[in-house]
Amino acid sequence: MNYSSAFIPTLREVPADAVIASHRLMFRAGLLRKLANGLFAYLPLGLRSFRKVEQIVREEMDAAGALEIKPTVVVPGELWKESGRWDSIGESMLRVKNRLNNDFVVSPTAEEVFTAIVRDELSSYRQLPIALYQINTKFRDEVRPRYGVMRGREFIMKDAYSWHADDKSLDDTYQAMGRAYRKIFKRCGLSVIPVKADSGAMGGSGSEEFMVESEIGDNTLILCKKCGYAANVEKAACKSDFTAQTSIEAAKDAAKGTPAFEKIDTPNAKTIEELCTFLKTDSKSFIKTLIYRAINVELDLSSAPGCGKLERKKPSPNAPAVYPEAFFAVVIRGDLDVNEIKLASVLKASEAALASDSDVTRLTNAPVGFAGPVGLANLPVIIDHTVTGMNDAVTGALAKDLHYKHVAFGRDFTGWSVDGQLSVDVRTVKAGDLCPQCGGELYTKMGNELGHIFKLGYKYTRSMNVTYLDENGKSQMPVMGCYGIGVDRTLASVIEEHHDEAGIIWPVSIAPYHVIIVPIKYDGKMKEAADKLAAELTQAGIEVLLDDRNERPGVKFNDADLTGIPWRVVIGDKGLSQSDPQVEIKKRTEKENRNIPLNKAAAEFTQKIGEELSSLNN
Amino acid sequence: MNYSSAFIPTLREVPADAVIASHRLMFRAGLLRKLANGLFAYLPLGLRSFRKVEQIVREEMDAAGALEIKPTVVVPGELWKESGRWDSIGESMLRVKNRLNNDFVVSPTAEEVFTAIVRDELSSYRQLPIALYQINTKFRDEVRPRYGVMRGREFIMKDAYSWHADDKSLDDTYQAMGRAYRKIFKRCGLSVIPVKADSGAMGGSGSEEFMVESEIGDNTLILCKKCGYAANVEKAACKSDFTAQTSIEAAKDAAKGTPAFEKIDTPNAKTIEELCTFLKTDSKSFIKTLIYRAINVELDLSSAPGCGKLERKKPSPNAPAVYPEAFFAVVIRGDLDVNEIKLASVLKASEAALASDSDVTRLTNAPVGFAGPVGLANLPVIIDHTVTGMNDAVTGALAKDLHYKHVAFGRDFTGWSVDGQLSVDVRTVKAGDLCPQCGGELYTKMGNELGHIFKLGYKYTRSMNVTYLDENGKSQMPVMGCYGIGVDRTLASVIEEHHDEAGIIWPVSIAPYHVIIVPIKYDGKMKEAADKLAAELTQAGIEVLLDDRNERPGVKFNDADLTGIPWRVVIGDKGLSQSDPQVEIKKRTEKENRNIPLNKAAAEFTQKIGEELSSLNN
Repeated sequence: MNYSSAFIPTLREVPADAVIASHRLMFRAGLLRKLANGLFAYLPLGLRSFRKVEQIVREEMDAAGALEIKPTVVVPGELWKESGRWDSIGESMLRVKNRLNNDFVVSPTAEEVFTAIVRDELSSYRQLPIALYQINTKFRDEVRPRYGVMRGREFIMKDAYSWHADDKSLDDTYQAMGRAYRKIFKRCGLSVIPVKADSGAMGGSGSEEFMVESEIGDNTLILCKKCGYAANVEKAACKSDFTAQTSIEAAKDAAKGTPAFEKIDTPNAKTIEELCTFLKTDSKSFIKTLIYRAINVELDLSSAPGCGKLERKKPSPNAPAVYPEAFFAVVIRGDLDVNEIKLASVLKASEAALASDSDVTRLTNAPVGFAGPVGLANLPVIIDHTVTGMNDAVTGALAKDLHYKHVAFGRDFTGWSVDGQLSVDVRTVKAGDLCPQCGGELYTKMGNELGHIFKLGYKYTRSMNVTYLDENGKSQMPVMGCYGIGVDRTLASVIEEHHDEAGIIWPVSIAPYHVIIVPIKYDGKMKEAADKLAAELTQAGIEVLLDDRNERPGVKFNDADLTGIPWRVVIGDKGLSQSDPQVEIKKRTEKENRNIPLNKAAAEFTQKIGEELSSLNN
Repeated sequence: MNYSSAFIPTLREVPADAVIASHRLMFRAGLLRKLANGLFAYLPLGLRSFRKVEQIVREEMDAAGALEIKPTVVVPGELWKESGRWDSIGESMLRVKNRLNNDFVVSPTAEEVFTAIVRDELSSYRQLPIALYQINTKFRDEVRPRYGVMRGREFIMKDAYSWHADDKSLDDTYQAMGRAYRKIFKRCGLSVIPVKADSGAMGGSGSEEFMVESEIGDNTLILCKKCGYAANVEKAACKSDFTAQTSIEAAKDAAKGTPAFEKIDTPNAKTIEELCTFLKTDSKSFIKTLIYRAINVELDLSSAPGCGKLERKKPSPNAPAVYPEAFFAVVIRGDLDVNEIKLASVLKASEAALASDSDVTRLTNAPVGFAGPVGLANLPVIIDHTVTGMNDAVTGALAKDLHYKHVAFGRDFTGWSVDGQLSVDVRTVKAGDLCPQCGGELYTKMGNELGHIFKLGYKYTRSMNVTYLDENGKSQMPVMGCYGIGVDRTLASVIEEHHDEAGIIWPVSIAPYHVIIVPIKYDGKMKEAADKLAAELTQAGIEVLLDDRNERPGVKFNDADLTGIPWRVVIGDKGLSQSDPQVEIKKRTEKENRNIPLNKAAAEFTQKIGEELSSLNN
């Protein structure tokens, strides 16, 4: 391909809204242009790399035994009503009515569509397992699209789904997908951090996220310096830094030396910091009590205090019944924070967030800042593990300017038991906490999710009523897994990891071209040598960009660096005029160039590029 | 690929709404499933063939010098407002508002987006020509989606656009695209009829449609038995079967022997048939007068009768001004029909349709059925060529139950001259008319459009204000071309052309697999031989489906025929037990099978398939 025909509009200027390297460089190197906020067009150079990532994903999915299909992008709203997500997924889903007033959705993800397809074809256990995928357009109406294609509104996602007769079969496919994902990212030259993650609103359990480190990442990763433990903060655990009690009796025993609790006046002290100062103690002596509002709670609340009048509803005929709204008090040691995702997971809720001030006042009969578990009777109290070890604590006394001291768990209050457990883990793990695996010190990084594999369980097969007949002719429901990769984000992350001041440094596997040939002037003998070398390389399967422009060498070199082509070969009169004509070759990753004979250049590139590809692919 | 893992749910039943072969067979062979009216999911077998068509299109576009890019599917409504099509394109375009209440469009086509991208990058004549394409999702909210993917709502279209400094350059690319299209359809094994077509609402002139014959086609094709003339009825011309006059004077001369026109009573005779019976003459003696309503008329009507008060409006700031609505009388020989597309093209209107009865009554001051050109003063009269030769005709007399006889063009009435012409061609050409090229007899076929190339002119570059600096530093507007192929429809048309009672007969170039291996039983020696042959073929680059199912041979044979794999090889115990083990091979297009030695099978298929591919591709 000749540069002058390749439509590569490189820029010297950086777009004002481009704050991260990949966004800046995709614009500057002419890979991408903006159509609107969060909507981008890939130009020819960008699309070449994009298609290579797509193809790597496709090959590894095929190798993992998944079959590619292609549903539509615009899908019937009816399917989303069946699963119940029409109501629960929120405003990020683009809904549209057609001329007949039918509801449609511009797919943000495709559990419903794939499940509907399989439902119609599945009859016997002999057909299972089934694993299907697509690489197709998705749309999510992000509130704040930014960072270029790293957080765009429309993007291409590879999404795979699988159906199984049993958990063993699901786990086999889940593991195969995990291996395929590691292979995909390796082939793209990416360093990913696989972390255990909460599967959030998707339901089910058993999931792994594939993260890349990123200063603008959406996720906080909790990592261990010693053993390699890695988790999303939404799911991360840590080793106890307290004495936990495992029964009410043990807790009562531990409280034996503690005086009876008593009221203390705490005028104008509402925050834990103010109380610490006032009482001359530290925050670890406080029991923090927070009131949460959870929505779509699947947990059975029939025995929970204050929940007697709540009614369960089914978002769709086959979906499990949920409480549309419920309130909870959560108690935790005063120096710690409650993680809302962990809490939602404990409550089997689609979301948990701090209740409004008016709800807090109504539920605690006290102003905000004075909630406490002692005497709190009209809502379920959820006990974080840390609180079980607290036998001489300070808490709010459910009245203005009043607290209790000498409060002991087990003796003075207990909680509402979730699934028979004395306490649960809803603590936000922080840097400095101890690794749950080895006790080493944990640290944090910000990360962006490129891929996610998880076991969905029966969420969609139940709500959409998918069944098959087992070996005994009995109707059964298959269990599902689901596996996604963001293709655009993967591409952008490669640039984040591989660039320098001058531009992109493509791994050869997804470089738009392997070699850029730069004749000092595209004329006479230099043109002849350039054309001949381009033809030889193309013949050998090497992808070549030939800079035929009438530009100064400096401009051409800058564009070669900016566009990040892995190998550059410069053809000049001086080198050609030698008895054994020479050209100058340079690897994009290296500073130094070297001369080689022109007639050895094709063989040299073919060998080097072959080696690099094979080292990435194997 | 083993059949049992390939998710090929073949059906014995035909879906009730599948009336054409491709629709029936795509469902029966497990290529496709329906998600909703006009929305389909390609299953693995269908997608394999689909991707091959896509790849053929991509290769030929690249070879023609076009560059692939990828804009989004959901695009800003603002761009459509700029071009003026936001208002003119009608309800088939799916419009959607996002959470910020911004307007978006699910792309039905992409002139606007591509033009906007080029506008931002184009500065100098040195960058021209530019040719860009995408192969991407489109959505058109068809009123009556049917015939499977032949007329679906969502589909994949290859759409290319080009920009040029002059008409010569545009024509070069237009011709290159025409050659690419012929190559694409040949490689897919399709017989297409390239026809001159009107470019309709797209604007511009110079266009060619690539049609396939189809009983359910949208288009009527006019074809010549003798010389190969082919045209869409929307544009077809024919040789004169009348004496046309080319000036008013000549028409007056020709009318010298005709008595003065006079009123005749024609009670209860309103239709031409009734008049023929009443006056005992034939329809060729009548001048038919029809009142049309045209919208968005670009033609200058300032001199046209009755149009003095019409106001021009600009649909967008840079678009040409149009009359939103105007009425016209059209006269034509009584045995002929007016073609509304040809009429709209003459009037430079986006649409022309018969006026309502109340409009006719208002404009002619007479009941419907009595319009005529004599004395018709308050709207422009458009003269079809045929009428110039009529010098003793019957016409309506603009009053109930009254006609005129002895009416002569030129003497008794003339028309409003369009662009200085005495008359225009708005006649619908029919079977039996004479070929405009050779005078041979014309016949008709129904056809479906698979591709369309056309010269757009300045419609979008003008309305969206695209400019560049020419060699003299002067600002110029580039001229545009546009080139589309429906990928889904191309695939379905291949099945329409290549099938029999038993199923699909794939051309090897887009067959989902090249060879199906059918062991009578997938067990013992037969399994061994089947696996070995599959491995050998795969090694040679041949795509193999191995029917490993535990089904009766008849079921396997039927599915092999239904799915249309070009070559079948049956492996049975009897053949294997011979001293030189034999297998039975059969081409899908042939009835007879023959035995060949097992150890020659791989070489035989490799050779045959190579030959077939090369005959399609070259």
